[in-house]
Amino acid sequence: MNFFKQTTLIGIGLIGSSIARALKKNKLSKRIHIYSKTKKTINRAKKLNLGDFYTNNLELSVKNSDLIIICTPLSTYESIMLKIYKHIMADAILSDVGSAKLSVVRIFDKFKKTKFHILPAHPIAGTEKSGPDSGFAELFKKRWCVITPMGKNNSKSLNKLKKLWVQFGSKVEIMNAKNHDKILALTSHVPHLISYSIVSSTLKVNALEKSQIIKFSAGGLRDFTRIAASDSTMWKDIFLSNKKNLLQITEKFEESLKLIKKYIRNNDSQKLKRIFLNTKKIRKLIEKEKQE
Amino acid sequence: MNFFKQTTLIGIGLIGSSIARALKKNKLSKRIHIYSKTKKTINRAKKLNLGDFYTNNLELSVKNSDLIIICTPLSTYESIMLKIYKHIMADAILSDVGSAKLSVVRIFDKFKKTKFHILPAHPIAGTEKSGPDSGFAELFKKRWCVITPMGKNNSKSLNKLKKLWVQFGSKVEIMNAKNHDKILALTSHVPHLISYSIVSSTLKVNALEKSQIIKFSAGGLRDFTRIAASDSTMWKDIFLSNKKNLLQITEKFEESLKLIKKYIRNNDSQKLKRIFLNTKKIRKLIEKEKQE
Repeated sequence: MNFFKQTTLIGIGLIGSSIARALKKNKLSKRIHIYSKTKKTINRAKKLNLGDFYTNNLELSVKNSDLIIICTPLSTYESIMLKIYKHIMADAILSDVGSAKLSVVRIFDKFKKTKFHILPAHPIAGTEKSGPDSGFAELFKKRWCVITPMGKNNSKSLNKLKKLWVQFGSKVEIMNAKNHDKILALTSHVPHLISYSIVSSTLKVNALEKSQIIKFSAGGLRDFTRIAASDSTMWKDIFLSNKKNLLQITEKFEESLKLIKKYIRNNDSQKLKRIFLNTKKIRKLIEKEKQE
Repeated sequence: MNFFKQTTLIGIGLIGSSIARALKKNKLSKRIHIYSKTKKTINRAKKLNLGDFYTNNLELSVKNSDLIIICTPLSTYESIMLKIYKHIMADAILSDVGSAKLSVVRIFDKFKKTKFHILPAHPIAGTEKSGPDSGFAELFKKRWCVITPMGKNNSKSLNKLKKLWVQFGSKVEIMNAKNHDKILALTSHVPHLISYSIVSSTLKVNALEKSQIIKFSAGGLRDFTRIAASDSTMWKDIFLSNKKNLLQITEKFEESLKLIKKYIRNNDSQKLKRIFLNTKKIRKLIEKEKQE
């Protein structure tokens, strides 16, 4: 099919390497250029045969590419953009995979007078693993990819990027960045913040208790440790980028926790049961939507 | 093998029906008696062919059984015990599967002068599903079963019960009830409390937002909704039974959350990263223990 002549992936971690694999598997790009800042990662990517050209030179990596996807932590975007924007072809598509979008749009906005087309995107898919070895071509299958187009729209580019994600097996949703960040704070960022907090609080116990906690983690904690094992740089960037929504929604969570604690303190069996019956309904809706 | 001549399962939900299936599959009991208070559940259990005798009469259900396992919510134990204790054979084993143990020991203590052997137990296994249809024989495989023996020990009975759980595929740990409740509060009860709180807090949004939350739940929230879909009666009983540990450990979680929020507010990138690198270590230990 070869939608694209040459794709540059800036960053080749879990998401970048999954895109590389999905591009190859579905023959969606004639060539794949891979940028990483570290030699070690470049060598792993080479060994895994993820691309056709490997470099730690940003300017060089984007030359002649008609698709460029930034797959690095949010805190790197600005310096990356400053280095590459002059070297990107006219009419190329520049996209990304960042989990917060308002901060991304703000950075990209500074480059809106360029002749390439900027289309921020966020595939809602991932695992707790990181690095080029952890990716796989099916990561995006049946998952949503949100695209948050900016001021000036180019429908041809937008359609092309949409089609790419559909080829990866994703469902595509167009949303504005502000709404994206609010919803994702609820569905992803706050759950991660809470997971990090609960796992972090277990670190304070003594060694004997720690070994028992690990032994008996299957009762619930295990699922939190999986979430709290996600990439540390990526997540601190997401938290700092979506700070306002994050803190607001965490406050709502704290109110719920306070209420449930009160009912427990007061032995209020009926009120607890009512809450837990309601939370079950949400699960049913999620199963119905096949997001389980 | 037929370790037991006749087993009575009081309650035939997820755990009870999984025990029934595991007993049958491994031929560990000649006969299985099933008690449920509702006709509907008895009929389902019959249809699923989980036992040999079905009744909603507690006294009758335990007659001539050499193993009795209570598999109902914690709040039902006392009234069940008052009805059955006179009808249990001498030297029979009475056990349970409750997730909090100190409150269970306190109830059982009132019956310690009887001639049967009381051995409280807790298989750390489960899913968010409930009812006789949701059980399966392999539920306990590779999972821990904690037994918390009471004052007077009968080593023959203890060994027999241990062997039964080993036959189910479990690893067995002997612990005192107090320690069990503290560890389980950390690994299971507080994670459930937090999951219920976070899912409950998402219920307050409007309908449009709710549909988007469900759509994009794969980013983390989904895992919490699974936990928060667990049986409502069972869990309010666990929370009320292990209240002290629950509230104490929740407080530690709240301290961690407060600290992380402070670092986010202050843009303290380095401190956040350090916390998230530490939480990742716990995950690695859990994977090493094969509790993933």
